[in-house]
Amino acid sequence: MNPLNSLNFSGGPGALPESVLLQVQESMMEVPGVGLSILGISHRSDWFAAVVAEVETNIRSLLGLSTNYHVLLLQGGATQQFSMVPMTLLRGKVHPAEYLHTGYWSGKALPEASREGPVRVAWSGEASGFRRLPNDDELVFAPDAPYLHYVSNETVEGLQFHRVLGRDDVPRISDMSSDFLSKPCEAERFSLIYAHAQKNIGPAGVTVVLVRDELLADAPANLPGFLDYRKHIQTHSNFNTPPVFAIYVILLVTRWLLNDIGGVARMDQINRSKAALLYRMLDGSDGFYRGRAAPEDRSLMNVAFNLATPALEQQFLAEALAVGFSGLAGHRAIGGMRASIYNALTLPAVEKLLGFMDDFQCKQTR
Amino acid sequence: MNPLNSLNFSGGPGALPESVLLQVQESMMEVPGVGLSILGISHRSDWFAAVVAEVETNIRSLLGLSTNYHVLLLQGGATQQFSMVPMTLLRGKVHPAEYLHTGYWSGKALPEASREGPVRVAWSGEASGFRRLPNDDELVFAPDAPYLHYVSNETVEGLQFHRVLGRDDVPRISDMSSDFLSKPCEAERFSLIYAHAQKNIGPAGVTVVLVRDELLADAPANLPGFLDYRKHIQTHSNFNTPPVFAIYVILLVTRWLLNDIGGVARMDQINRSKAALLYRMLDGSDGFYRGRAAPEDRSLMNVAFNLATPALEQQFLAEALAVGFSGLAGHRAIGGMRASIYNALTLPAVEKLLGFMDDFQCKQTR
Repeated sequence: MNPLNSLNFSGGPGALPESVLLQVQESMMEVPGVGLSILGISHRSDWFAAVVAEVETNIRSLLGLSTNYHVLLLQGGATQQFSMVPMTLLRGKVHPAEYLHTGYWSGKALPEASREGPVRVAWSGEASGFRRLPNDDELVFAPDAPYLHYVSNETVEGLQFHRVLGRDDVPRISDMSSDFLSKPCEAERFSLIYAHAQKNIGPAGVTVVLVRDELLADAPANLPGFLDYRKHIQTHSNFNTPPVFAIYVILLVTRWLLNDIGGVARMDQINRSKAALLYRMLDGSDGFYRGRAAPEDRSLMNVAFNLATPALEQQFLAEALAVGFSGLAGHRAIGGMRASIYNALTLPAVEKLLGFMDDFQCKQTR
Repeated sequence: MNPLNSLNFSGGPGALPESVLLQVQESMMEVPGVGLSILGISHRSDWFAAVVAEVETNIRSLLGLSTNYHVLLLQGGATQQFSMVPMTLLRGKVHPAEYLHTGYWSGKALPEASREGPVRVAWSGEASGFRRLPNDDELVFAPDAPYLHYVSNETVEGLQFHRVLGRDDVPRISDMSSDFLSKPCEAERFSLIYAHAQKNIGPAGVTVVLVRDELLADAPANLPGFLDYRKHIQTHSNFNTPPVFAIYVILLVTRWLLNDIGGVARMDQINRSKAALLYRMLDGSDGFYRGRAAPEDRSLMNVAFNLATPALEQQFLAEALAVGFSGLAGHRAIGGMRASIYNALTLPAVEKLLGFMDDFQCKQTR
């Protein structure tokens, strides 16, 4: 394996486990036991039905989810969910849905929701430059809201909620795209969770949706078929041709999480170790490396930081890339640096990055 | 390579060229010159922008398309296009859009269009069991229709239009999912062409849309972002994370068509040879094999046929599978048999199938 792959700190598409990539590689010519390329297997085959069923089972098992939740595998990314959620739950409603505006991605969800019905921004971090998340004293949630929507981990700004928000009598909906299956998440406290694959669980082109059965009782009857969760539930994510390949990769990643890692609690321990090393480096650098997020809201997935000047940041990125660290540039919306340390990014890879950061600082400050 | 892959007669996902599969396999660990797995490369990288640009150029070149057409690479399959087309062109209109109902897939487009505005079915093959297509005498098209929509090749029934339909003063829109890039198609006579990938050009999970610039002049302003063609045009198919892997496969397939095959006119010759062999076998079998479609409307992509009894059909399918012919069962909607002979299914593979069919008939009739 090329060493660069193991040092892919990109915000997404992210690194995938080497053992998964090897199995995927084999499947290009022949999926074991099937005799066809993964790219040529019918989505109506018994084999693929078993793949979807095992993905459902594995995700239920990893999150401790009961059978009153449906597990769906859809196309269109989180962006499609920004629209599907309010199309389903907000059209024709009087009371506003409540949204938290905590960064780039939650901000993208807002205009799509407002197209469909009334929206109240319950808290916004815009004035503070999205450098922190709200504390409980700042949050008052209405009991009559159709739902509360928030992003569990803001990928761009490196902010992550370390608690579940909202009222138990209002449906909680969360975009968990960048921390899904990175840790236990109290999934049953949510009515709907969505996560596109291309961070922790697979390649771009497929989105996991977990939805509580009762949530859809009053959904509009006249939605286009592909935007109607119930159509996807009835057909086990086979309403129209699903992205077979991407779903197969999710199968392999969930097997890896269950069997090689040992579950999401163990994954969380590993992820915490990786993040702790990086944040300790930032905090101990005498201000050479400057963490972007408020310490209590730091993301375990995306470590965003700055150097003293944009010129120094460019130098850092160029030297890092030259020795094989890929994807460290911050999101184009805010610049700076970001080390994304998703599930498949290993502790040794983080240690290598720390070594590089240490050297870079030494050379600049001696 | 496993021989089964080369004998994949499935209606879709279809076979892909072996040389493409070998390159895709290599890319799992490292895309040549990039140093990252294809599954971990950023959709915002210069490399991926170059991939999208080359796919656009290759498709333009293959179809002789001028730059007033946009080439888009979207998610959601033809199913999403069933909705996007009328959302864009039919909402609020008085005159009905005209649709041909020529089989299973054109039938799927109808209810989605009707949700958005008035629809007139200009011709339906339902009464004839979708065994033939209309001739010109049966078709009268209104000059004030917002557009005409038809499916160029009905994958399930094995029916294909061998001419361009409609009026030059009404926008033509065609679902070419199952014959796109299999032959020259007079693309500039259409205002919008769409085709999901999983027949001739790539894996499931990506859809090509060719759209004439002027068609979108009066599109509604308030569509959800991901359902607005203009948003995808402005962002070069990077409005939200695109299916990077599937688009990379399309790049390799279009290179194969241009460089290895020599263009779609040559591809058409090869496809005609394959289809001619199969239809000659059906016609020469003294009624043992019964072609489903009217001779003048036979598809060059999907050869649908029956045997005398369902029991004999089951025996045929079981024996075929046992010796390595995969995907010959007809679509679940109509049963029977279907040999799909997409671009990557080779002439020698068709010859092998003919040998099997000949043997099977001999054994049954001696």
